[in-house]
This record gives sequence, C-alpha cells and structure tokens, in this order.
Amino acid sequence: MIKGYNPEDKIFLAVDCIIFGFDDEDLKVLLIQRDFEPEKGNWSLMGGFLKQEENLDDAATRILYRLTGMHDIYMEQLYAFSEVDRDPVARTISTAYYAIINIEKHNEELIENYNAKWFSLKEVPDLIFDHNAMLDKAIRRLRRRTSINPIGFELLPEKFTMRQLQKLYEAILDKKLDKRNFINKINSMDILIKLEEKDMSSSTKGSFLHTFDQEKYDNKKTNNFYLKL
Amino acid sequence: MIKGYNPEDKIFLAVDCIIFGFDDEDLKVLLIQRDFEPEKGNWSLMGGFLKQEENLDDAATRILYRLTGMHDIYMEQLYAFSEVDRDPVARTISTAYYAIINIEKHNEELIENYNAKWFSLKEVPDLIFDHNAMLDKAIRRLRRRTSINPIGFELLPEKFTMRQLQKLYEAILDKKLDKRNFINKINSMDILIKLEEKDMSSSTKGSFLHTFDQEKYDNKKTNNFYLKL
Repeated sequence: MIKGYNPEDKIFLAVDCIIFGFDDEDLKVLLIQRDFEPEKGNWSLMGGFLKQEENLDDAATRILYRLTGMHDIYMEQLYAFSEVDRDPVARTISTAYYAIINIEKHNEELIENYNAKWFSLKEVPDLIFDHNAMLDKAIRRLRRRTSINPIGFELLPEKFTMRQLQKLYEAILDKKLDKRNFINKINSMDILIKLEEKDMSSSTKGSFLHTFDQEKYDNKKTNNFYLKL
Repeated sequence: MIKGYNPEDKIFLAVDCIIFGFDDEDLKVLLIQRDFEPEKGNWSLMGGFLKQEENLDDAATRILYRLTGMHDIYMEQLYAFSEVDRDPVARTISTAYYAIINIEKHNEELIENYNAKWFSLKEVPDLIFDHNAMLDKAIRRLRRRTSINPIGFELLPEKFTMRQLQKLYEAILDKKLDKRNFINKINSMDILIKLEEKDMSSSTKGSFLHTFDQEKYDNKKTNNFYLKL
C-alpha cells in the first residue's frame, strides 16, 4: 500500500524522440510510418515504453539507437505530455526528448527497416496523437537554446564554411540573416578556429573552412551567453 | 495487450512542486515536514500521485492548492525525474513543477496543517530523495527565465519601489547589482508604470511606487527579450 496512490489507477509511461538533422539547406526531422493500429500508415515520432530498469534518459538513448544506430548524441528532455485523452489506446504519459544528429552519420539500413524518412520542417505531415505539438515545442526549444548556447554545431560536419554555419542558423531560426552582421556576431563568440584549408566547391576563390574550439565551446555552454540574431 | 509494453513493469507517477516566494529580502521555498516513513520528520517538497482523470498540470495545480489555498498561480513544468532508485518505496517517476507565489497571500492555516515552513534558499536542509536536485534545477530555470522574461514580478506586491524590484532580482540571481545600471535596464524594458504615490517608510523623501503594465508585459512575454544583469 503506497500512501496517496489509488491502486485502480493505471497510467503507462512512454518516451518519444524528436530527431533533428541538417542537410546544408534545411532543418529536418526523422519520422517513422506507423505499422500498427490505431493510425496505421500515419507518420509518427519514434517512441517506446519506459522499462522498469532504466531511467528516461536511458530510454530515449535506447530508442534513438534503435532507429539510427547512433550513440553519444546531444539529447535533451523536452517536456512530459500528459493530456488524459492524448493516446486513444490507453492512458499514457509521454516524455519527449529531442536529439540533434549529423544527418550524414545515421545508419541508412536501420532507418529503412523502420520506414523512417527525413522531412523538412515545412513539409511535416499530420502526425499521430499529439506528436505535432511535441515537434512544435521542440523547435521552439531548439531556437531558444540556439540563441543561448552554441548547440547547433552538432548539426554541422567537422569542418564547415561560414556560409554553411549561416545556413544552419537561418534554418533553425527560420529567417534570413545579414551576412556581415552574422559573421561579426559569430566571431564575437570566439569559439571558432579558422583553418588554413579552403572549401573550393562553391567558388574559384574558395571559402576558408572552420572548426569549433571544443574547450571554449564547453566553457560558453556552462556560462550561458546570449547570441541575438 | 499494448505493443511494446511489458505487463510486469510497474512504475508510479508523482508530481512534486517547488513553491517560491519572496519576502522583501530573500527568495524562499515552501517545504513540508514528512509525517510518514521512510524519512519521517525530514523536509520535503509538496507532492502527490497523478490521478487517472487529470493531466500533470491539473495535478500540480491541485497539489499547490491543497497546500496554499491559492489558485491562478504562475506554474511551469520543470523536468521529469526518473532515476531508477530515486524513491526507496517503489519505482516512481516524478514530474517537478515550480510555482511563484506572492508570499503574503498564502493561507497560513493550511500551511500549518501540513507542518510547512518557508526556508531561505541559503538555509534549505537536506531534503528527502532527490528533492534537493529538483530545487537546484528549479532555481537555475528561474534564473534563466528571469533574464528572458519578466516573470519575477509575480513575487512582488502590486505596487513596489525600484529598490524592492532590485532586491528581488538580487535574490533570484544571487548577486549584488549596480543601482544605476539596474534602473536603466529595467526602464529600457518599458513595462513599468511610475505612480504618483510614494512609499514613505524607508526615507523622509520617500520612493515612488511602480506597478507593471500588464499589456506590455504580456507582449514582452511572448516576444522573448533578453535582460542581461
């Protein structure tokens, strides 16, 4: 007998993952096509039930790994969604996590097994249950985080041009940024290392490649700073 | 039979509330003395189990009302705490909420019935389970929110002096602020209304009272702005 608990209550506990990736132009989200009823055939976030022996972070990590084959990913708990009728099958609370992955590194075979597909944020279909609300909240959180911490860098390849970085911020914030202004602000963050190497693919003059300074980056991350774009 | 769920799993769902108040000098938190085992006699956040027919917001609202007699309070979901061994009685996930209340308005009788007491943040004792971690996370969230939205105002009486407002920010941020600098930054937010009325209690000259402009305030709230103090 547990004080204050009604033994007739039965509430299930799930975890759903919003998985963001970036392909040089667009911010994308990885969705799976549901293969069982209800809402069979509709698109959904990847999810699963919490197991007795794991915490929520473990569950989110397990679910992400199952779909992408990826470990050591930036993940953050987003919010616990708990509307009474959110899942028509049974009363289920779902704690949503969002992850930011490098789109080139996921396991193509795994995501094919799950009928998973990357969708540009502007082309996301109607999702099952409250998954659109989860995604919206994740986008807002990602935008807020991006203006406080330089987390978006997880989405880029190891070496990138300023133009790629600007494209990334434009995709996350969903607005055009002024090039000169952007470069000044990024430089004022002092977390980039400019390499000797150039990317020659976009122009004959080429564009210098950059990488970011992990130590300074970690330092900024703990001492919240504000990047207003 | 629910797909992916192991029917032997049994996980309980609780809600715990971090209730902040401000008494003109200190930021405080309302704690209750636990009257049952385990950890009988130790201090704890106010909590309870989620009921079948309510969502997490409802549960947090119910718990806050039971302890303070107060409705319509600023509350925000903080985080779901889920370490496997966090509660020695049974596997329990607790979703923590924090609330900001005007300390003068709570129901004294109710909190006495619960052996509840206001503690300055600097004098918080060892709490049960992971409640100290919940409180720490709530303080960090409150600090971050305070520098993005003017939420701290819920903690003040309707009319307040600039000195009271500065004291509040100093208490939340746990640092001394330069008076002139503070006044400039607050004025630049443009959400205060300066009243004709003065508070004569602190000096013979008196200090002008202010109130805040609900409309401008709500507008700033939706358009996140940054107040760096």
